[in-house]
Amino acid sequence: MEIDSSNQEKSTGSGGGIKAIPRKFKAKVVEIVVKTKKIGQDDPRRVAHSAKVGLALTLVSFLYYFRPLYDGFGQAGMWAILTVVVVFEYTVGGTLSKCINRGFATLLAGALGIAAEYLATLCGENGEPVLLGILVFILATTSTFMRFFPNIKRRYDYGVLIFILTFSLVAVSGYRVNQIIQLAHQRLSTILIGAATCIVISICICPVWAGQDLHNLAATNIEKLASFLEGFGDEFFSFLGDEGSVVASKDDKFFLQGYKSVLNAKATEESLANFAWWEPAHGCFKFHHPWKQYLKTGVLARECACHIEALTSYINSRPQVPSEFYRNIHQPCVKMSLESSKALKDLAGAIKNLTHPCEAETHVKNSKAAANEFKSILENSSLLAIQDDVQEIVPALVVASILINIINCIEKISDSIHELSEKSHFKNANSPEKQQQKQLLHRGIVKPINIDANCNHVAIEIHGKSEDNSSVQATNKGEAVHM
Amino acid sequence: MEIDSSNQEKSTGSGGGIKAIPRKFKAKVVEIVVKTKKIGQDDPRRVAHSAKVGLALTLVSFLYYFRPLYDGFGQAGMWAILTVVVVFEYTVGGTLSKCINRGFATLLAGALGIAAEYLATLCGENGEPVLLGILVFILATTSTFMRFFPNIKRRYDYGVLIFILTFSLVAVSGYRVNQIIQLAHQRLSTILIGAATCIVISICICPVWAGQDLHNLAATNIEKLASFLEGFGDEFFSFLGDEGSVVASKDDKFFLQGYKSVLNAKATEESLANFAWWEPAHGCFKFHHPWKQYLKTGVLARECACHIEALTSYINSRPQVPSEFYRNIHQPCVKMSLESSKALKDLAGAIKNLTHPCEAETHVKNSKAAANEFKSILENSSLLAIQDDVQEIVPALVVASILINIINCIEKISDSIHELSEKSHFKNANSPEKQQQKQLLHRGIVKPINIDANCNHVAIEIHGKSEDNSSVQATNKGEAVHM
Repeated sequence: MEIDSSNQEKSTGSGGGIKAIPRKFKAKVVEIVVKTKKIGQDDPRRVAHSAKVGLALTLVSFLYYFRPLYDGFGQAGMWAILTVVVVFEYTVGGTLSKCINRGFATLLAGALGIAAEYLATLCGENGEPVLLGILVFILATTSTFMRFFPNIKRRYDYGVLIFILTFSLVAVSGYRVNQIIQLAHQRLSTILIGAATCIVISICICPVWAGQDLHNLAATNIEKLASFLEGFGDEFFSFLGDEGSVVASKDDKFFLQGYKSVLNAKATEESLANFAWWEPAHGCFKFHHPWKQYLKTGVLARECACHIEALTSYINSRPQVPSEFYRNIHQPCVKMSLESSKALKDLAGAIKNLTHPCEAETHVKNSKAAANEFKSILENSSLLAIQDDVQEIVPALVVASILINIINCIEKISDSIHELSEKSHFKNANSPEKQQQKQLLHRGIVKPINIDANCNHVAIEIHGKSEDNSSVQATNKGEAVHM
Repeated sequence: MEIDSSNQEKSTGSGGGIKAIPRKFKAKVVEIVVKTKKIGQDDPRRVAHSAKVGLALTLVSFLYYFRPLYDGFGQAGMWAILTVVVVFEYTVGGTLSKCINRGFATLLAGALGIAAEYLATLCGENGEPVLLGILVFILATTSTFMRFFPNIKRRYDYGVLIFILTFSLVAVSGYRVNQIIQLAHQRLSTILIGAATCIVISICICPVWAGQDLHNLAATNIEKLASFLEGFGDEFFSFLGDEGSVVASKDDKFFLQGYKSVLNAKATEESLANFAWWEPAHGCFKFHHPWKQYLKTGVLARECACHIEALTSYINSRPQVPSEFYRNIHQPCVKMSLESSKALKDLAGAIKNLTHPCEAETHVKNSKAAANEFKSILENSSLLAIQDDVQEIVPALVVASILINIINCIEKISDSIHELSEKSHFKNANSPEKQQQKQLLHRGIVKPINIDANCNHVAIEIHGKSEDNSSVQATNKGEAVHM
């Protein structure tokens, strides 16, 4: 960026005229290089993907370069190249979806095309093109219309396209080509070679799994909501702390922008879920992983982000001098914000580590308790007791009210992720500390005191090696062992 | 639907066994027919589009059917079929974008491919495939990486794809084909024939303009927001009216759901705007119509929809027995809601009719005045004067506060649409009534009393034909004439 700006300075300087053009050109080149570097660094898998496409194309070119292969397939080798170019997608799921669609559609349309061609030859010299024309028109029209069906559009759009293409090619070119069966055979095998090359390279070299990406996206989005709520708690209710914390949180304001990308994640989520549906078992995900559940969670996350958007209007509207009432509701409001942030963080962590979210429920309960505390403050403090201007307390009331909505939303998100956890058999959490505790338990130097069947919470007392009485109830510090 | 349910009843009846299968099949067929009918009726242009694709394919098939054409192009005729299938999009902009991308990419890649082939022949028998392989790898890799650049992805993604395809095909198949120039010429001309067929049919038969669709979408979305605010005003503040109005509004609750589609319109808007960029002048839209401005408006509309989403939580939380304070703030709140609804309706109407939105500003001002009225009620009614429970008034305070945010949002939307109106030279409003008034003005039986230079507002007095003194100040009823 420094180079960029220095170049701009030069070009606006006295140099001018003809000399300015190469400078501008240089600046443009530098800008492109910087941009390219950034795109590559943002996701290095993009570089790998590009090289994979290059490799696949080079490999299928051997159908032309090697004499024995060329003798076998002839010009049909170009269908392998064509297949690689149009079928190789960024994610494994995308590539698989296109390959399977292309394969089946070619097979079906090829067979139908040959049948249509055979039928047409029965109509004699003059009737053949007429009947072929009618058949192509009817099939192309109905197939194109089918692409408007949402279910077909979502998964088989490419297949229908290839179906129209292959049927037309086979039926129409069959009118002029005599050895249509041999032609169809050659094309199908080269298409299969191209598709197989793509699948093998896509899966074996640095695979990009749509499922894994969707999974990470879900966790990241929920984390962004958590970051906002954490930051908001500090930002809106910071007047009670020292001034330093306000200044610090202003530097961190980029946290308050993260939720915006959650609002726009719908399209990405849906396409990833569609691609993930095609993917075989990979990593921790089985073939029938409940991808749809991520979409449900996504809808709820966006709803929550919407409430957060409403909240942002009030970030700068806290009173300069907090009133008595304001001080009273401050504590539960901060608690609501922080506890809901913790709940979301636990949920995001649970998704990330594929563990059962156990602490989220507790945090939701805590935030609900804070909400009730806020409500009871409202109930008990009859307005006669409040000495302030209503206008001053309105922002705080609105913020608290929206926070309560956010808590309801988070409860739904929590339910949805619990459902996801059950459907995909997430294991129970086993953090290193907890494993250490488990080892201690195993060696008999800690004694379990309480087992909660639902979450396999094991509250423990940790005894010192000398077995003195200064035991620490780990439960209070949230250090329960998840089995 | 009736047929469907009766079939379901039958299949769950005692029939069972083998007979149940045809029944289920029949029910499935009926379901598909109903679905097909619905998709066709929702947008009849879909049927037209399907027929257009069928027609285009049948037309390019003549390259095979007609002997003279087949003698000219031979097997290259299949490129025309291929082009039609992959290039024919639903909107004119989509088709044009793909055709232009395909044309230029083929030309450029074809030339580069021939050059690469020539270069490779210089390396001798053994060196040729090696150099070709290296060139294909480098070009495919860099081009694939270029597809990750957002600007290229948005407009030239298809072009880059075709570039890789054509370069590989020409360079690699050039290794085996001697008359490469003739081959390239044949392919290019058939691709041009296919593309030209698509463009002509797409534009001349029932054209679907992406620009027009984007324009309509913008208007519809703003109208949906307006409908919500209108309905919300009735719904939330209806206790003061008679009970009948509450029941009626409950039947109309689907109005309260419309805003949800606004939240999800981003992807559609962006793709339409991209396609619209390629479209020539059509209807009231010039070639350089400011399509980007629709995206800006869309962002603001979604922001507004987000606030509305926050508002929906309070629809059912109005108190059963309205308190004194509640009654006080009722009037300005209803006014805020209704005036902002009117402002949005005027803005939507302005987009629809391509007229300058003049009344919107007045309605925004009115709603702001109502907001100020609400604020002054808050200021003046010291809380000591309020005899109620705070908890009871919190929903109303929150709703009013969110409504104020919505008004700010609508002001931004209004500014954005004013900008759009200026950039695309919308004409000033001329509704039939206003034209009538203009005629009356022309015939001298109405007398202008006030001209507002900004909006060309002409407040008028309408005199009866007998010129008596019972003149009506049309301004009060919003019947100003827009020139």
